[in-house]
Amino acid sequence: MSLRAALLGAAGYGGSGLMRRLLRHPNVAEVRAASRSYAGRPLQDAWPHLAGLHGSDSSLFVSPEEALEGADVAFLATPHGATAPWVRAARATGARVVDLSADSRLDATTYERWYGPHPHPGDLDDARYGLVEAHRAELRGAAIVAAPGCNATAVSLALLPFAASGALDRATIPVCTVLAGASGAGRAPALGLHFAELAENVRPYKVAGTHRHLAEIEATLGRAAVQGRSLTTRPTPEPWRISFTPHLVPTIRGILATCTFSVTTTRTTEGWLEMLRDAYANDPLVHVQEALPDMKAVQGTDRALLSARVDARTGLVSSFAAIDNLGKGAAGQAVQGFNVAFGFPETTALELEAVWP
Amino acid sequence: MSLRAALLGAAGYGGSGLMRRLLRHPNVAEVRAASRSYAGRPLQDAWPHLAGLHGSDSSLFVSPEEALEGADVAFLATPHGATAPWVRAARATGARVVDLSADSRLDATTYERWYGPHPHPGDLDDARYGLVEAHRAELRGAAIVAAPGCNATAVSLALLPFAASGALDRATIPVCTVLAGASGAGRAPALGLHFAELAENVRPYKVAGTHRHLAEIEATLGRAAVQGRSLTTRPTPEPWRISFTPHLVPTIRGILATCTFSVTTTRTTEGWLEMLRDAYANDPLVHVQEALPDMKAVQGTDRALLSARVDARTGLVSSFAAIDNLGKGAAGQAVQGFNVAFGFPETTALELEAVWP
Amino acid sequence: MSLRAALLGAAGYGGSGLMRRLLRHPNVAEVRAASRSYAGRPLQDAWPHLAGLHGSDSSLFVSPEEALEGADVAFLATPHGATAPWVRAARATGARVVDLSADSRLDATTYERWYGPHPHPGDLDDARYGLVEAHRAELRGAAIVAAPGCNATAVSLALLPFAASGALDRATIPVCTVLAGASGAGRAPALGLHFAELAENVRPYKVAGTHRHLAEIEATLGRAAVQGRSLTTRPTPEPWRISFTPHLVPTIRGILATCTFSVTTTRTTEGWLEMLRDAYANDPLVHVQEALPDMKAVQGTDRALLSARVDARTGLVSSFAAIDNLGKGAAGQAVQGFNVAFGFPETTALELEAVWP
Amino acid sequence: MSLRAALLGAAGYGGSGLMRRLLRHPNVAEVRAASRSYAGRPLQDAWPHLAGLHGSDSSLFVSPEEALEGADVAFLATPHGATAPWVRAARATGARVVDLSADSRLDATTYERWYGPHPHPGDLDDARYGLVEAHRAELRGAAIVAAPGCNATAVSLALLPFAASGALDRATIPVCTVLAGASGAGRAPALGLHFAELAENVRPYKVAGTHRHLAEIEATLGRAAVQGRSLTTRPTPEPWRISFTPHLVPTIRGILATCTFSVTTTRTTEGWLEMLRDAYANDPLVHVQEALPDMKAVQGTDRALLSARVDARTGLVSSFAAIDNLGKGAAGQAVQGFNVAFGFPETTALELEAVWP
Repeated sequence: MSLRAALLGAAGYGGSGLMRRLLRHPNVAEVRAASRSYAGRPLQDAWPHLAGLHGSDSSLFVSPEEALEGADVAFLATPHGATAPWVRAARATGARVVDLSADSRLDATTYERWYGPHPHPGDLDDARYGLVEAHRAELRGAAIVAAPGCNATAVSLALLPFAASGALDRATIPVCTVLAGASGAGRAPALGLHFAELAENVRPYKVAGTHRHLAEIEATLGRAAVQGRSLTTRPTPEPWRISFTPHLVPTIRGILATCTFSVTTTRTTEGWLEMLRDAYANDPLVHVQEALPDMKAVQGTDRALLSARVDARTGLVSSFAAIDNLGKGAAGQAVQGFNVAFGFPETTALELEAVWP
Repeated sequence: MSLRAALLGAAGYGGSGLMRRLLRHPNVAEVRAASRSYAGRPLQDAWPHLAGLHGSDSSLFVSPEEALEGADVAFLATPHGATAPWVRAARATGARVVDLSADSRLDATTYERWYGPHPHPGDLDDARYGLVEAHRAELRGAAIVAAPGCNATAVSLALLPFAASGALDRATIPVCTVLAGASGAGRAPALGLHFAELAENVRPYKVAGTHRHLAEIEATLGRAAVQGRSLTTRPTPEPWRISFTPHLVPTIRGILATCTFSVTTTRTTEGWLEMLRDAYANDPLVHVQEALPDMKAVQGTDRALLSARVDARTGLVSSFAAIDNLGKGAAGQAVQGFNVAFGFPETTALELEAVWP
Repeated sequence: MSLRAALLGAAGYGGSGLMRRLLRHPNVAEVRAASRSYAGRPLQDAWPHLAGLHGSDSSLFVSPEEALEGADVAFLATPHGATAPWVRAARATGARVVDLSADSRLDATTYERWYGPHPHPGDLDDARYGLVEAHRAELRGAAIVAAPGCNATAVSLALLPFAASGALDRATIPVCTVLAGASGAGRAPALGLHFAELAENVRPYKVAGTHRHLAEIEATLGRAAVQGRSLTTRPTPEPWRISFTPHLVPTIRGILATCTFSVTTTRTTEGWLEMLRDAYANDPLVHVQEALPDMKAVQGTDRALLSARVDARTGLVSSFAAIDNLGKGAAGQAVQGFNVAFGFPETTALELEAVWP
Repeated sequence: MSLRAALLGAAGYGGSGLMRRLLRHPNVAEVRAASRSYAGRPLQDAWPHLAGLHGSDSSLFVSPEEALEGADVAFLATPHGATAPWVRAARATGARVVDLSADSRLDATTYERWYGPHPHPGDLDDARYGLVEAHRAELRGAAIVAAPGCNATAVSLALLPFAASGALDRATIPVCTVLAGASGAGRAPALGLHFAELAENVRPYKVAGTHRHLAEIEATLGRAAVQGRSLTTRPTPEPWRISFTPHLVPTIRGILATCTFSVTTTRTTEGWLEMLRDAYANDPLVHVQEALPDMKAVQGTDRALLSARVDARTGLVSSFAAIDNLGKGAAGQAVQGFNVAFGFPETTALELEAVWP
């Protein structure tokens, strides 16, 4: 199969990662990169690293409308709230959709609580939540793949096997801390992301239940409590409350999630690692390891590194997950979901190996 | 009063901060900087920022023995385990001691559990734990001031008012995450602190109850549970277990502690902030603020910035503390304790205002 | 003397440094911080590091007009081009002026070539170029102190003694490379200063004779060629052409200038260092050292560290200067010039000692 | 052709890059990774990013001797001075050699001047200098490929077309400044590379004709002066003196070289860019662009980005080159040379596209 792909939001960080992966995807014949602000300008104006590659001096950004014309699949890396209309437009032209925004991730009621009213709630019926490790079966043939949020991905991967197996004590609230690099906040300049303000700094933000990725995480864990390992997106379950405290850290990329919680059974650290290894045995993008994960070990890749420890003094378990927010947390995951939805090998065009140092 | 001060470990990061503060302390007439490895060499060989200042080209590092001769007070910034003998040597020459290592912080039994047998357990009777905000009364006139660990300082300041007031639920385990800059691990080169390995990286370390600062924190909270606000070092109380997960982050300095826990009463965020403000009303180095603290706002200073939030969804409270691990977490705190022990104004020679950006 | 100071542009990086120094200046009784965008809001809204200090929760930014009312001295940290009218307004109220912008640095003709027509060329007659090390005598009693640009300061200090003594070969063109931290470009967010774009990056900018600080440097060197050591601002001399290539580097602060040039006489490295030491023997903010300077050794300070080397193979000399672009390159230099102009001790309220690490 | 490759020094940064490229090279059937310090331990002990890949938990580092047994080609990423004996050992077993150290780069006399006596000067006759862009023809079939130093690569690429065409004025000395990331100094921990000392720092080092890469650069330029475009390694020409000032900057990877010099003819900037484009028209790893190069645009890649500007005021030309010191400056260049020597397509297994941001 040789597809024509439209890429909206191509001049942002999500777009950069999608271009990289789609341009080398054997089943993608053409990628049309759309950007409102760069339309008509060559790719290298937005992307200095592409200078001299992919005809970047002559290939031009197009408008979203041009990009969608005749597309078989549309990748939407446009902002939350503004994307639902593009989902509709893409499908009207016959394209299937991979949506990297939040606009296809939640049921209409939950969406409204966190983001405001959804403009096209009926479209949500065709959306499948794109955390492949939990929804693989359901994603096959999906019309709309809703790529999960980056924080949601890291926390969900760290907690899912514990929730699905009943090991995580339903009566208590897992405490999750996330350390996230600067690119997670996007490419638009802002004082908090200004080099001189963020370098040598660490800052908690959107704490105490205010971060919108909570909606996804809690829905995912709620499903796991009812459905066990292999999840379906509908119906939306009772959410499983967690405590979630994100912190901005001075790295370009990367998320490190640390989740600490009570468990219902007693195992050694090695026992919990074994449980995790079993849970992810068939997931090519998840690696469970004894060593505590370095954020750096996944930068530039689409893999997640997981580990866990039990604290013999308190009985609490800590589960750790490291991903690249722009890889497994964005473009990589979107292409993984695309691969599954279209029946391609799951890791086609993905990046497994980081560059070190 | 005009004192002669000995400073052991003067070529490390604790030493650098002590020199800065002692050299401008109006009650310190002389500072003798000792370093085994730099003895006989000028100060600027170890400290490029002192070139041309304090006669750094002609002032020489001396040996520890020379430094102690005739000293009125000895500041010990030497390693854990190796410092207890210097405490003894300093006191033998008639000096009072400010010990920045762990060797004077714990009772002999607890020390042995975390660090191995204490060589001079009898000396511990004269040591007072130097978290001034909790032990101010007890520190007056102290023969040995035991400056707390940097992580212990941040976590203790974040939790103490909750523990001492009974607001922190004794039946549950507070979950504390610490983000710590590279200098906390000292000046000795190591692969994990190599620029190319730590830049763009975040790494959990000594997790699941293995970090030795836990001993201090848990003793402090245990005392607070029994003694309320104003603590005494002896007798050692039943420790109050916490979950503690430190992470190394790519900043030079700084600690950001995030502690999440159940509370026994219901307050709004503003109510908890008010409680914290009351608790620290007389502490010149602690500032409670509504804004979530930036690590950068305390770098180079001896202040702590605190804030808190209640999560209306889960009822959990998160308490945040930012300090400079080398300021309020080391040299600043040591000089603060010295000031209290010797009867000088508490903030003499300390740094209150950071440089921004 | 106890002065009322107005500070315009107080919410930018120049303003931050000026507030720090003026608030502790013994001859400044009051500082009125003005900012168009923050007027009416408390200081801590712009400056997180001031939370809890200087009454930052109740002290409010004022408008420029309010700040100037009754001021004895006005510090102008406002943009190039927009500052000349404030110079005039300040003087109309009877204030003397310290101008950190480019608007008082050049003669009208040179200004026009680099910045466009000067709105009040007549005012330039009262302006004295504030590189104290070269214009100290002339600055005493000055009505307008024109604080030099940060790059100009570093390069001028590195080259001046060579130019003034005739050692620098007038027939050749010194090649100067500058490495400058991010804060030099100011506090306004921009893509090139976005953390994710500048971290791990280095970028030449305004190369090949296009950087406007060239005008100052070349005028300074031109004067040195004619006037020798102690310079006067008028008349403007024939400029001395240099090659100047600035690079943005991923540090918050700091400038490292490396200037390489032919010399008219032969000396050893030690001989050139001796010449530099003699030239700056009476300058408290310049230190000449044998070791190559670390940018880090001056961050947060108002000092310049200089060194030099002769390349025995080529005969060329390299002269190195490190400053903090916001210290000796901006606020520190402005206060140094203010001190000289008003007859206060030159280093009053200045910072000499960096924090390390 | 399917080769067995030995890789010595596999636990260093050169080794990391070689493993990445060789493991995916279609003509390399097997890679034996050797490390004295890690011998017998699994790959992931040295390389956290390989956890779960390439059987990194079971694949073990071997000794150098084991690695060489039966090898067809030996990649030597071992230290200068210690590598010449391994060249000999490798060839004794019948392997051809790619030497990343300095030990095969120079003639015996020049080597001795910069590094001390060469242990096996006779072996140098078979070595070909591996700057493919200058020595492509000569490298075909080479028994020993001497991969150039990272600084030498950047500076040589920036200057070669000017030198070979006669545009660079032989009577003057080009002034070259290099900004180099931390990994260029290797993986061995050292105080100057300690995170807390190098972050927020910039430091000139080995200035004034003392950096050993000068030997290579000056030989290359000397050859260009005599031989024009396509160079041969022997005989060693009269060196062409340059001024070379390297600076350590706080990035993990990357080199940005800025060379400023007099020219013999007058061209516009566009004219010089055209000359550069022509010179590198057939070089797949060199891209000449109008925009000044970002160091970040080549990190992780094997490409060089070049640009140039003429300063209309001084007539001087500045030529800029950005490379990844571990890519085009080390492992990438080594594999490029290997490809040419063995007759494989030149960019086989190389990396062209950076990850942004």
